[in-house]
Amino acid sequence: MSGERLWIAALGGVNEIGKNMYLVQYADDIIVIDCGAKFPDESLLGIDLIIPDVSYLLNNIDKVRGLVVTHGHEDHIGGIPYLLKQLNIPIYASRLTLGLIENKLKEHGLLRQTSLHCIDADSTLDFGTITTTFFNTNHSIPDCLGVVFDTPEGTVVHTGDFKFDMTPVNKPYPDLHRMAEIGKKGVKILLSESTNAERPGFTPSERLVGSHMEEAFKNAEQRIFVSTFASNVHRLQQVVDAAHHTGRKLTLLGRSMVAVVGVAQELGYLDIPDGMLIEPAEAADLPPEQCAVLCTGSQGEPMAALSRLANSSNRLMEIQAGDTVLIAANPIPGNERNVARIVDNLYMLGARVIYGSRSELHVSGHGSQEELKLMLTLMKPEYFIPVHGEYRMLHHHSLLAEAVGVNPEKIFILKNGDIVEAAGGTVRQSGKKLTAGQILVDGLGIGDIGNVVLRDRRQLSADGILITVITLSQTDGRLLNSPDTISRGFIYIRNSETLMDEINQLVTDTLHKMHKADLGQWNIMKQTIKDVLGKFLYEKTKRRPMILPIIIEV
Amino acid sequence: MSGERLWIAALGGVNEIGKNMYLVQYADDIIVIDCGAKFPDESLLGIDLIIPDVSYLLNNIDKVRGLVVTHGHEDHIGGIPYLLKQLNIPIYASRLTLGLIENKLKEHGLLRQTSLHCIDADSTLDFGTITTTFFNTNHSIPDCLGVVFDTPEGTVVHTGDFKFDMTPVNKPYPDLHRMAEIGKKGVKILLSESTNAERPGFTPSERLVGSHMEEAFKNAEQRIFVSTFASNVHRLQQVVDAAHHTGRKLTLLGRSMVAVVGVAQELGYLDIPDGMLIEPAEAADLPPEQCAVLCTGSQGEPMAALSRLANSSNRLMEIQAGDTVLIAANPIPGNERNVARIVDNLYMLGARVIYGSRSELHVSGHGSQEELKLMLTLMKPEYFIPVHGEYRMLHHHSLLAEAVGVNPEKIFILKNGDIVEAAGGTVRQSGKKLTAGQILVDGLGIGDIGNVVLRDRRQLSADGILITVITLSQTDGRLLNSPDTISRGFIYIRNSETLMDEINQLVTDTLHKMHKADLGQWNIMKQTIKDVLGKFLYEKTKRRPMILPIIIEV
Repeated sequence: MSGERLWIAALGGVNEIGKNMYLVQYADDIIVIDCGAKFPDESLLGIDLIIPDVSYLLNNIDKVRGLVVTHGHEDHIGGIPYLLKQLNIPIYASRLTLGLIENKLKEHGLLRQTSLHCIDADSTLDFGTITTTFFNTNHSIPDCLGVVFDTPEGTVVHTGDFKFDMTPVNKPYPDLHRMAEIGKKGVKILLSESTNAERPGFTPSERLVGSHMEEAFKNAEQRIFVSTFASNVHRLQQVVDAAHHTGRKLTLLGRSMVAVVGVAQELGYLDIPDGMLIEPAEAADLPPEQCAVLCTGSQGEPMAALSRLANSSNRLMEIQAGDTVLIAANPIPGNERNVARIVDNLYMLGARVIYGSRSELHVSGHGSQEELKLMLTLMKPEYFIPVHGEYRMLHHHSLLAEAVGVNPEKIFILKNGDIVEAAGGTVRQSGKKLTAGQILVDGLGIGDIGNVVLRDRRQLSADGILITVITLSQTDGRLLNSPDTISRGFIYIRNSETLMDEINQLVTDTLHKMHKADLGQWNIMKQTIKDVLGKFLYEKTKRRPMILPIIIEV
Repeated sequence: MSGERLWIAALGGVNEIGKNMYLVQYADDIIVIDCGAKFPDESLLGIDLIIPDVSYLLNNIDKVRGLVVTHGHEDHIGGIPYLLKQLNIPIYASRLTLGLIENKLKEHGLLRQTSLHCIDADSTLDFGTITTTFFNTNHSIPDCLGVVFDTPEGTVVHTGDFKFDMTPVNKPYPDLHRMAEIGKKGVKILLSESTNAERPGFTPSERLVGSHMEEAFKNAEQRIFVSTFASNVHRLQQVVDAAHHTGRKLTLLGRSMVAVVGVAQELGYLDIPDGMLIEPAEAADLPPEQCAVLCTGSQGEPMAALSRLANSSNRLMEIQAGDTVLIAANPIPGNERNVARIVDNLYMLGARVIYGSRSELHVSGHGSQEELKLMLTLMKPEYFIPVHGEYRMLHHHSLLAEAVGVNPEKIFILKNGDIVEAAGGTVRQSGKKLTAGQILVDGLGIGDIGNVVLRDRRQLSADGILITVITLSQTDGRLLNSPDTISRGFIYIRNSETLMDEINQLVTDTLHKMHKADLGQWNIMKQTIKDVLGKFLYEKTKRRPMILPIIIEV
C-alpha cells in the first residue's frame, strides 16, 4: 500500500449553499457523499437547476464504490437523478432519506435500474480499503446521519447537516456518546457544516416552534392555514399535534406536501390520528373552527399553494376574512420580497397573519456557533475542513476551530475541486485539482446552456431585440426590398412607427454607402449595420437592444 | 365657499415603499407633497426607474400652487426632474433638501427654468385657501420637515419620514413642543409614515452607531473603509469624527459620496477639519493606519465603489490583507445576496469585515411602533391615514392608531389614487379616484414600456428567441428558399445544428401541407408555424422560446 494516498475533495458545496457533493478516495476506492442540486439566482435567466460537474467520477467509473447520502434535503439529494443518468452506482441512505430518493427516481423513471440500500446508525459498510460507519444527528428533517470513514491514513468524519437538539420532537437524540467515542479514538480530518457559523449562541429546539404553534391554534377563531417546508417532518408533526389538541381536522395543499406526508406517514415518521386527514373538498363542509390546512409555499414561490391562496387563485380552497395564516419559515435570502407580497395580499383578504422571526414559528435546522464548537470539541480533529457554506461562513467556522484549539495551519478552506491529500501521515492541500463546476439544467437540456446563451438572455431581458431582414439579389447583390425590421421587448410598436421607418432608411443608406468590395461579405455587412444601428438607437433611446441583421439571398 | 371640499390623495407611496407623492386640494388650490422615484424589482426587466403618474396634475395645471418637499431622499425627490419636464411649478424645501434637488436638476438641465424656495420650520406659506407651516423631525438625513395644512375643513398634518431621536448627532431635536401645540389646537386628519410599523419598540439613536464606529476605528490596524448611504449626513459626520479622533485622513470613493459630501459641507451640515479630506491618489502615500475611506455601495450595487473594491477592480484603491471594512447599512430587502457576495470577496482578500445587524453599525431612520404611537398621541387626530408603506405596514400602523384611541371607522387605508374627502365637517372616502399608476423609465423613454414589452422581455429572458425567415415568391406564393432559422438565448448553436435542420424541414413541410386558401394569408401562416414549432421545441427541449416567423415576399 505504500505510495497510496487519501484524497478528500468537494465537487460542490464549498463557497456556496447548495449542490453538496464530497468525495473520499483511498487507492482505488472512491466513496461519494451526497449529490445535491442548487436553485439558480436571478442572474441565471431561465435556468431550472444547477448540479455538480461529475467528470472526475465518470473518468474513474470503475473506482466509485457507492454514494452515501446524509439526509433527504434537495441540496443533498437533488442531483441524484442526473448523476444516475450518467453513472449507475449503489446508493446508501437511511430509511426516510431513501423514501424521498425513491420518489425522485420514480419521477425520472430511474427506480428499477438503481440499487438502493437502507442503512442506519448501526450499519458498517466495507468499501475496499475504507470502512464506513455512521452516527445520528438532529436537523430539520428526520433520519440524518454523520459519516465516519476509517482509512489507512486515519479517520475522516463528515458531519452532514446538524444541530444539537436535546429535546427533539421525535427521536433520536443527538448521539453525543457515539461522537465522544469517535473523537476519543482520534479523528484525523473533520469536515463539518458551516451554515450558521456567523450566528452566535445555540439554535433553539424545534419544540419552541411547537409551543407557539399550539398557542396560535388556540387563538384562531376560524380556519387556520400553516405554511412550512414540506420536508420538515418534525414541524409537520407539531402541526398535526396542535390541530389534534384543538379538535381540528387537517387537509393538505401542494404537491410536495402531499408527497412528503405520504412517505413520512407510510414509513412511520409522522403520526396522524385515524380519520384526521381529509380531502380539501371535505374541508369546505366543516365548520371553520374545526379545520386546519397544511400547505406549501412558505418561501413565496409564485406557483405554490400559499401564493395561490393569497391571490385567491387556489382552485380547492379560499381564504375568508377572519381566517388565520401561519408562515412557519423564515425567507431564504432572495425570497423576502415574494413572501412580503403574500403577507400583504393575505391582510387585504382580511386574514390574521403570523409571520416573521418575531413570531417564533421557525427555528433553524443548523447549529449556531456554540454547537459548531461543541462538534469540534467532541471530535477534536487534527485537521479541519469547514464545508457547506459560502466563503464568509467557512471563514467564520475556521475562526471557531482556531478558538477551540485547532492549529490554524491545519485548517483548509477549499474551493470546489481542491484536494486535501494525506500520505504517510502528512496532510496537505494538493497542487492538483479535480474538475468541478456548475452544470446548468434548463428543461431537458443538461449543460447545454453556456455563457453565450446566458449573455444573450441578459441582453434580451434588459433591452429586447431588433431584427432587420435584408433581401439581396443572388445575381447582382442588389437590395431587392426595403429592409423588414421587427422588434420585441424593445419599444412598444404603436409608439415606434416613425422610428422603424427611420431604421429602415438608415439600413438602406448604410448599404448604399458601403464600399463595393465589402458588399457581398456578409460578416462585414452585418457588423456595419449593427454598429450604425446600435449607435443610432442608443442616441435616440439610451437603450441597447440586441441587433440581429439577417441577410437573405434570393 | 359652500359646496367646496377638501381632497387628500396619494399619487404614490401607499402599498409600496417608494415614489411618494401626495396631494392636498381645497377648492382650486392643489399642493403637492414630495415627488419620489422607486427602483424596480427584478420582474421589471430593463427598467431604470419608476415614477408616479401625474395626469391629474397635468389636467389641473392652473390649480397646482406648489410642490412641498419633506426631505432629500430619492423616494421623495427622485421624480422631480420628470415632473418638471411636464409641469413647471415652484418647489419649497429646506436648505439641504434644496441643495440635493438642485444637483439633480443640474444633471437634467432643468435648473434655470425652475423656481426654488428655501423654507424652514418657521416658514409660513399661503397657497390661497390653504396656509402651510412646518415642524422639525429627525430622520436619516438632516433637515426633515413635517407639514401642517390649515384648511377651511380643519388641519391636515403630513409627518414626512421621522423617528424620535432625543440625542441626534446634529441639531435639531425633534420638536416635541411644536407637535404638542399642533395636536392641542386640533388635527382633523393625520397622514403618518408606516415604514417600521411592524417593528416593536423604539428605534435606537444614531449616536449608537457612532460609539461602535469609534470602537472599530480604534481596533483597526491598517486602513479602514466605511461604506454607508451617502445621504446619511449624520453618519458621515460620525465617520469624520471617528477618523479625526484616531488621527486618520479621509478620502472619498463613489460619485454620490463625493456629491453629497460636497453639498453637505458647503451648506454647513458636515463639519470636516481643514486638511483632513484628501484625494484617493494621496491616500496611497499615507501609512495605512493614517487612512480612512468613505465609500458608496453598501447595498451591494455592482457598479459602486465597495463592489469594485471587493472585486479588486477599483482603479483608485485596493484592499490589502489586514485592512478593515465596515458596512454601516443593513441590506434593503432584495439586496441581501449582493451584499453577502461582497463580504465573501472581502474575506478572500484577507480583510477584516464588520457587517450585519449584530455589528450595530446601522440604525433605522424610521420610528418603530412606540414612536408611531408617540406621534399619534401628540397629534391626536380625529381621522388617520397611514402612508409610506406596503400594505402590511399600513395595516399594522392602523392597529397602532386604534390602540391609542383613534376610532377604527375614522382610519382610511388607501390605494394610490383613492381620495379622502372632507366637506361640511364630514370626512369620508370618495367614490371618485384619481389616475395613479407607475410610469416606467427606460433610458430616455418615459412611459413607453408597457405590459407587452415587459411580457416579451420576460419570455426572451427565460428561453430566448427563435427566428425563422420564410421567403416567398411575389408572383406565385411559392417558397423560394429553405427557411433561414436563427436563435439567440435559446440553445448553444454548436449543439443545435441538427435541431436547426429539423426546424427548417418542419417549417417547409408545414407550409407544403397547408391548405391552399391559407397560403398567402400571412397571419394564418405565421400562427400555424408558431404552433407547430412551439410544440416540437417543447417536446424536444421542454423550453418555450419566443418564435418569430418572418415572411418576406420577393
